[in-house]
Amino acid sequence: MSMEKTRYELGLATMRKMFGPDVDSALKGLEDSSPDLARCLVEFPFADVYSRPGLDMNTREMLTIAALTVLGYPQAELKDHIRGALHIGCTRDQVLEIILQMAVYAGFPAALEAVKTATVVFSEIDTNTAKKES
Amino acid sequence: MSMEKTRYELGLATMRKMFGPDVDSALKGLEDSSPDLARCLVEFPFADVYSRPGLDMNTREMLTIAALTVLGYPQAELKDHIRGALHIGCTRDQVLEIILQMAVYAGFPAALEAVKTATVVFSEIDTNTAKKES
Amino acid sequence: MSMEKTRYELGLATMRKMFGPDVDSALKGLEDSSPDLARCLVEFPFADVYSRPGLDMNTREMLTIAALTVLGYPQAELKDHIRGALHIGCTRDQVLEIILQMAVYAGFPAALEAVKTATVVFSEIDTNTAKKES
Amino acid sequence: MSMEKTRYELGLATMRKMFGPDVDSALKGLEDSSPDLARCLVEFPFADVYSRPGLDMNTREMLTIAALTVLGYPQAELKDHIRGALHIGCTRDQVLEIILQMAVYAGFPAALEAVKTATVVFSEIDTNTAKKES
Amino acid sequence: MSMEKTRYELGLATMRKMFGPDVDSALKGLEDSSPDLARCLVEFPFADVYSRPGLDMNTREMLTIAALTVLGYPQAELKDHIRGALHIGCTRDQVLEIILQMAVYAGFPAALEAVKTATVVFSEIDTNTAKKES
Amino acid sequence: MSMEKTRYELGLATMRKMFGPDVDSALKGLEDSSPDLARCLVEFPFADVYSRPGLDMNTREMLTIAALTVLGYPQAELKDHIRGALHIGCTRDQVLEIILQMAVYAGFPAALEAVKTATVVFSEIDTNTAKKES
Repeated sequence: MSMEKTRYELGLATMRKMFGPDVDSALKGLEDSSPDLARCLVEFPFADVYSRPGLDMNTREMLTIAALTVLGYPQAELKDHIRGALHIGCTRDQVLEIILQMAVYAGFPAALEAVKTATVVFSEIDTNTAKKES
Repeated sequence: MSMEKTRYELGLATMRKMFGPDVDSALKGLEDSSPDLARCLVEFPFADVYSRPGLDMNTREMLTIAALTVLGYPQAELKDHIRGALHIGCTRDQVLEIILQMAVYAGFPAALEAVKTATVVFSEIDTNTAKKES
Repeated sequence: MSMEKTRYELGLATMRKMFGPDVDSALKGLEDSSPDLARCLVEFPFADVYSRPGLDMNTREMLTIAALTVLGYPQAELKDHIRGALHIGCTRDQVLEIILQMAVYAGFPAALEAVKTATVVFSEIDTNTAKKES
Repeated sequence: MSMEKTRYELGLATMRKMFGPDVDSALKGLEDSSPDLARCLVEFPFADVYSRPGLDMNTREMLTIAALTVLGYPQAELKDHIRGALHIGCTRDQVLEIILQMAVYAGFPAALEAVKTATVVFSEIDTNTAKKES
Repeated sequence: MSMEKTRYELGLATMRKMFGPDVDSALKGLEDSSPDLARCLVEFPFADVYSRPGLDMNTREMLTIAALTVLGYPQAELKDHIRGALHIGCTRDQVLEIILQMAVYAGFPAALEAVKTATVVFSEIDTNTAKKES
Repeated sequence: MSMEKTRYELGLATMRKMFGPDVDSALKGLEDSSPDLARCLVEFPFADVYSRPGLDMNTREMLTIAALTVLGYPQAELKDHIRGALHIGCTRDQVLEIILQMAVYAGFPAALEAVKTATVVFSEIDTNTAKKES
């Protein structure tokens, strides 16, 4: 088994832990568009960075929500990471609290965009839960 | 009456003056998503900053249109502020002139995005006016 | 013939070479929104800058794709320039390679947004080609 | 006399009105580095944009201070424009008020950087005035 | 005692807890430049946001380091917050780990600038410690 | 020999080709600050991305100069890459032409900052050449 493969596998395992099993189809979509970017995404952020022991996964996801809120434009990726954060145990209140704090550092437009995205995620989850329960 | 309440009321009054009575339902939507961010929005930008005497309201709205054009991603908030600027007396030509000037400072992509947003606002207002007149 | 007119004509010729004849209707739309911004767009970027001899057109379009990927928010303009780049001879692989490289300088969110946009452009072109062939 | 020359002359006249006669040596420095960028700077922002009648010069400078505060990194250019704004009649309080408002749209880091720059400009002016008076 | 005063006092107490007693002279400098921005800084970020119970202070400082690293230009404020983070109990390794993670979201230039700033903070602390010990 | 080592070695070889032998001491400095970021820098941008065949090295450096000019704040890294671009065969005129084009996409402040940095690089090179010749 080549070492390169192990790096990919480590990254994929981290992604599944963070985002749940749905990540496989999302990643499949990216592979269809750009297999090289897909590979880099699995290997650099998720194998090289996220799997490092220096910060626990909850903290990493909180930092990422802060970063994406500040950047402002990547609401699609923010959506994935809010979902990921909730999946690994962050609370909705923590997500909203991070976004509120970012109003200080990136201004209210950043916080307002991120809150809209968080609201969509929360309501999608509620709808899915309601469906499963009925 | 607590002073905190006064701050909220002052901010709300400023928002109503700037955006018209529709602001109440927009604010209600934000309160459903994040009551704390809604409160901060009313109290910090609109009570602490916009109600200060140092700049008149028209100038403040023009500066905000400049700021949001430069940031680029917050087109939803830019839409609200273009509407607000027109509501308190800025002209459409002034709005377009600000956006054109921002091409110098944030490049043409920023100006092109903002012009699309301004065009949507102008045409929504025209449609509403036509409806009322018919 | 006034010199100002020549500058506009030079810019328009450059735009047609880069984006193909469809650029005329796109420009018409912008003129309806802001004739002054439309004029500045034709004259400054496309007459004053793009028509300069210092860099060939392919390189210029590659640089622009890099710039728009880094900015992140102007996906509509990125779409136009990816289409333009392919029109003047860049390959799809080069477009994807530029986007991948930008992950290094502006992070993965920038690259992921741009890849989605590139995928839309590629598939629109394929659909159009399929239509013409059938 | 060619029209191109007139455009340059118009831009230069606008720059002198805004920044005072010191602008000539600043422009000379830029010409030594990149004569083409210097020419574009005189002709596009200052001839094509700033000399347009749609907004008065004071308002334009206030918008530029807002834009540069939001961008954050161009403190050297912000310094020039704060100096320019004061030169054409804006007050120090207006400059500080714009910067304060930008805390809402680009966060406190943007406002804090800009206030430091404004303070340097104010104190340089005071030092020069004191020198002339003694 | 007015309520406004209490808000200021709460913010000031939070700042002292986060940054240590040196914050008073830093704040004094800002008050000399812009008393209104100084007041807003104490009251909005530090009274309204940081003193909220939803996130502990360590987490808040880590989020702020992420945000400032992503923004890139506010290295002076990043310096203060790295110092603050260490003051309230974050480790140097955690600071470096946050910065490394931000390479994923804002690119390597952001991480490289932030690492330089962190290195300066660490070495200033070491120099001060060495002085006190000798 | 482990594959991980090969990846590092490949990245280091790419860096030496691009930046010349001086890169070793620069990298040593970064390793003292954050060995993990140094390792990631060698392995991800320079082994995983830059060594890919899809774009030649000159084009990659030109794209990077575009990206860093647009970002605006990382002038220290822009300096390194301008030096790198010249080292591998780009001309000074090409560097200035890229920067000029970026005025279109990120505004004049971005271009003005980058031109200052380019001027410093050019003059440092001239000084070194003059020293060697005398």
